[in-house]
Amino acid sequence: MLRFHFIKLTSLFPPKPSPFPLRSQMGSFSTSTSSSSKLLFRQLFEKESSTYTYLLADSSHPDKPALLIDPVDRTVDRDLTLIKELGLKLVYAMNTHVHADHVTGTGQIKGKVPDVKSVISKASGAKADLHVVPGDKIHFGNLFLEVRATPGHTAGCITYVTGDGPDQPQPRMAFTGDVLLIRACGRTDFQGGSSEQLYKSIHSQIFTLPKDTLIYPAHDYKGFTVSTVGEELQYNPRLTKDEETFKNIMANLNLSYPKMIDVAVPANLVCGIQSETN
Amino acid sequence: MLRFHFIKLTSLFPPKPSPFPLRSQMGSFSTSTSSSSKLLFRQLFEKESSTYTYLLADSSHPDKPALLIDPVDRTVDRDLTLIKELGLKLVYAMNTHVHADHVTGTGQIKGKVPDVKSVISKASGAKADLHVVPGDKIHFGNLFLEVRATPGHTAGCITYVTGDGPDQPQPRMAFTGDVLLIRACGRTDFQGGSSEQLYKSIHSQIFTLPKDTLIYPAHDYKGFTVSTVGEELQYNPRLTKDEETFKNIMANLNLSYPKMIDVAVPANLVCGIQSETN
Repeated sequence: MLRFHFIKLTSLFPPKPSPFPLRSQMGSFSTSTSSSSKLLFRQLFEKESSTYTYLLADSSHPDKPALLIDPVDRTVDRDLTLIKELGLKLVYAMNTHVHADHVTGTGQIKGKVPDVKSVISKASGAKADLHVVPGDKIHFGNLFLEVRATPGHTAGCITYVTGDGPDQPQPRMAFTGDVLLIRACGRTDFQGGSSEQLYKSIHSQIFTLPKDTLIYPAHDYKGFTVSTVGEELQYNPRLTKDEETFKNIMANLNLSYPKMIDVAVPANLVCGIQSETN
Repeated sequence: MLRFHFIKLTSLFPPKPSPFPLRSQMGSFSTSTSSSSKLLFRQLFEKESSTYTYLLADSSHPDKPALLIDPVDRTVDRDLTLIKELGLKLVYAMNTHVHADHVTGTGQIKGKVPDVKSVISKASGAKADLHVVPGDKIHFGNLFLEVRATPGHTAGCITYVTGDGPDQPQPRMAFTGDVLLIRACGRTDFQGGSSEQLYKSIHSQIFTLPKDTLIYPAHDYKGFTVSTVGEELQYNPRLTKDEETFKNIMANLNLSYPKMIDVAVPANLVCGIQSETN
């Protein structure tokens, strides 16, 4: 039986160096018998809010520890069924930020799988079992995610990036939440948003990653599933502009008030547990 | 300038063996400088019909030859823009079958990119530049797809499977159209459908592939993006049943008449060119 005791973010699954590089792949079914770690990765879509939830697991570790990034309340049962079928042990239910367009699934997940720890940034101001800060590493088996601060859409937005090392997935993968979207970016007009911060966050924390780094956003509205740093550097219609032009674009989007914000944000500030009182 | 002359399905890009195995990966941005082939792969979603379109290219070949599987008319511009941005040369616009729920994008694509050849099975009865039969190989650069006959949803359904060889993607990938869906399968009550054939097709042509083979269907309605042969063998609620039970399930689905069928099928029988007269 696994037990988790956290003060600072640590793990019972410390990283173990391996001489074998591994490549990230979509939908890998764990059949590896080598000593190297193997990432099992699934991208899952919630149609109402066009949200992507990501399932990552170290399928070569005997416990098959797994985490979910940006789960949605409506699709919790789907996600937990898949995790069970794949024989994984869910360890973390993580958010990139306090979402305004849907209620996170972390609250329901914690109710159904009591050992799971919710994770969000300290800067988000939201309740969670674990608060992460830039530079933290989140270990699952012999794999890990790095935490990068990418404020601008909200003040507490973070990007989770797969580790840099010989036994970590190649190319790297960046889970950018609503900060960097495919050929777009998150809005900056509420929840402590700032177009200046967003521009700096993306250029300093995401565009400095290797060009083949895979970009996995929290949303896509056009049916794209993935991009790369190289593509966004070259083709993002907003981020390829200079900072002043970018700020002008963001100041003139004239977006409507998010229809879910008054329900979603209060719920998500307590990890999706709407009735939580402490 | 590339030119294409086809009688039987051949290609200007013959396969070249390589000692280096390569792994399929989602959204690979071609940066390879090795002599081995590298698959660039993108999964694209069309929300109205919940259709997946797949883009595959050999990004290590100087011409970066690419193909689209099951393009949708509504998303042709998105797909062609992506292909242009990635620096690919679209060679084939392929269908797994004559779709009843959406109009294929092949007609529009041929109008916008004249060198592209439309591909469909001979058994479909549909018009196309190239008709494939089971056992054909469709080469793009040093990579190729195999054609497998998987009738049952329609009489002309085929499954495209990435090649078996040291220089082909590992794990293999099967583009199953509407035959095998994730935890489901296509209906069998129109267009020459047959539950008996569907059951035999999946068990003989798909479930015999290695268990880690990635299943990429033409549709998903629950937000799944991929499965594996191993998963479907174990968890598909219909195909894990014996043949008689399966046939009973399929005979009692009580599905409504497909709302697009009377528009989509006639259009798709001529590659999505509704005004074509010859």
